[in-house]
Amino acid sequence: MVSKNQIKLVKSLQQKKYRNQYGLFVVEGVKAVRELLDSEFTVYRIFASDVSVFDGHDAAVEFVTEAELRQMSGFTTPNTVIGVFEMAKVGNIDFSDWILAVDDVRDPGNLGTIIRLCDWFGIQHLVCSATTVDCYNPKTLQATMGSIARVQVGYTDLEDFLRKTDLPIFGAFMEGQPVYTTKIPEKGILVMGNEAKGISSEVQALVSEKISIPQFGKNSAESLNVATATAILLNEIRRR
Amino acid sequence: MVSKNQIKLVKSLQQKKYRNQYGLFVVEGVKAVRELLDSEFTVYRIFASDVSVFDGHDAAVEFVTEAELRQMSGFTTPNTVIGVFEMAKVGNIDFSDWILAVDDVRDPGNLGTIIRLCDWFGIQHLVCSATTVDCYNPKTLQATMGSIARVQVGYTDLEDFLRKTDLPIFGAFMEGQPVYTTKIPEKGILVMGNEAKGISSEVQALVSEKISIPQFGKNSAESLNVATATAILLNEIRRR
Repeated sequence: MVSKNQIKLVKSLQQKKYRNQYGLFVVEGVKAVRELLDSEFTVYRIFASDVSVFDGHDAAVEFVTEAELRQMSGFTTPNTVIGVFEMAKVGNIDFSDWILAVDDVRDPGNLGTIIRLCDWFGIQHLVCSATTVDCYNPKTLQATMGSIARVQVGYTDLEDFLRKTDLPIFGAFMEGQPVYTTKIPEKGILVMGNEAKGISSEVQALVSEKISIPQFGKNSAESLNVATATAILLNEIRRR
Repeated sequence: MVSKNQIKLVKSLQQKKYRNQYGLFVVEGVKAVRELLDSEFTVYRIFASDVSVFDGHDAAVEFVTEAELRQMSGFTTPNTVIGVFEMAKVGNIDFSDWILAVDDVRDPGNLGTIIRLCDWFGIQHLVCSATTVDCYNPKTLQATMGSIARVQVGYTDLEDFLRKTDLPIFGAFMEGQPVYTTKIPEKGILVMGNEAKGISSEVQALVSEKISIPQFGKNSAESLNVATATAILLNEIRRR
């Protein structure tokens, strides 16, 4: 039986403060939990109102009532399964391929979509500025559609990280050179900026190649959403 | 002075039923209202708690109190300006360029992002299946970031529309041929499908070229979000 304290703990993990305090995060839904069980993440607890969903899987599932599940869940209509996992310890970065970096991305949906894109395009490492939204935010996790299990996401002082690398640093700017005619090297770092302000001036000073996505409309949009721009640029990097 | 009935009318436009009944829709925020004023859309009324924001613009602005604005707004923290505009009558489609079609896209954020992408890539016409989410939904409008002013969005029986065209019909499928090696013609129709189910079998039967976005991860994501996939494919069409 699940204790009141456990319910309280799980519920508290909706907040970043408690995620960091306990080093734990929550995912909801059979598919998402299953993907994390099959990944490098270490499971802490799994709670389900219907234990049969994990038949054939050797994870230890604790049965809870639907009412208990509702108390733990961050959703108004909770799933039948909640998994609690330990946050990943970020391993050493593999500098032999492209790395994506984000400078102060604030929207959880955008970050989640970017993680899903990294997964699709085989980008192993996503380096986030310390000001970027938490990758274990429930809305971020939902938007990753399970890709959090396959992409290594780390938070660091981005300027410091970029200053120490020998790789070419590409940054997305409105006034950069068209990506179609830019020579794309075998490896490098692509930096994407904040939703409203783009890449900060401090990080901009470290960018070696400013690139842009050509625009075709006559009086067209002022900018692209950061997740769609990332989609286009990762595609350009991989198709080169 | 604004009447109670007017406040009620504006508030009712948050719902599709009333938008269709009155042929009107609402946008909030100075920038969005200004862009629509500068577009082909016909203005019905503008309400502002600070009329100075439209100094130098010849739009007739009606002063309302902040309390009245709050009653009219769809947001919990309303903007200083609400504009009510007439829905666009969709003009004749220009078949000399690429056209984008969406089959049953349900998420307002996705549709709005797709409209913003059309604007960026100079796609004039977006043809939506009758089941696609309303482009005048407040969440859709917000995600367009003003691009609704520059893209013609129409709703129709998509099968019927596709059956009557001579243009090549490209559709995005997981198992399509890689877009990188597909010959992209000068004009055509690109069809994107529903978030969960993709393109319906009825529409699929009308597609002449099934294309896909190559995947690079080893055990990677099952799919891309429809808006990011649209971003990549419109970029591929324009860069050809």
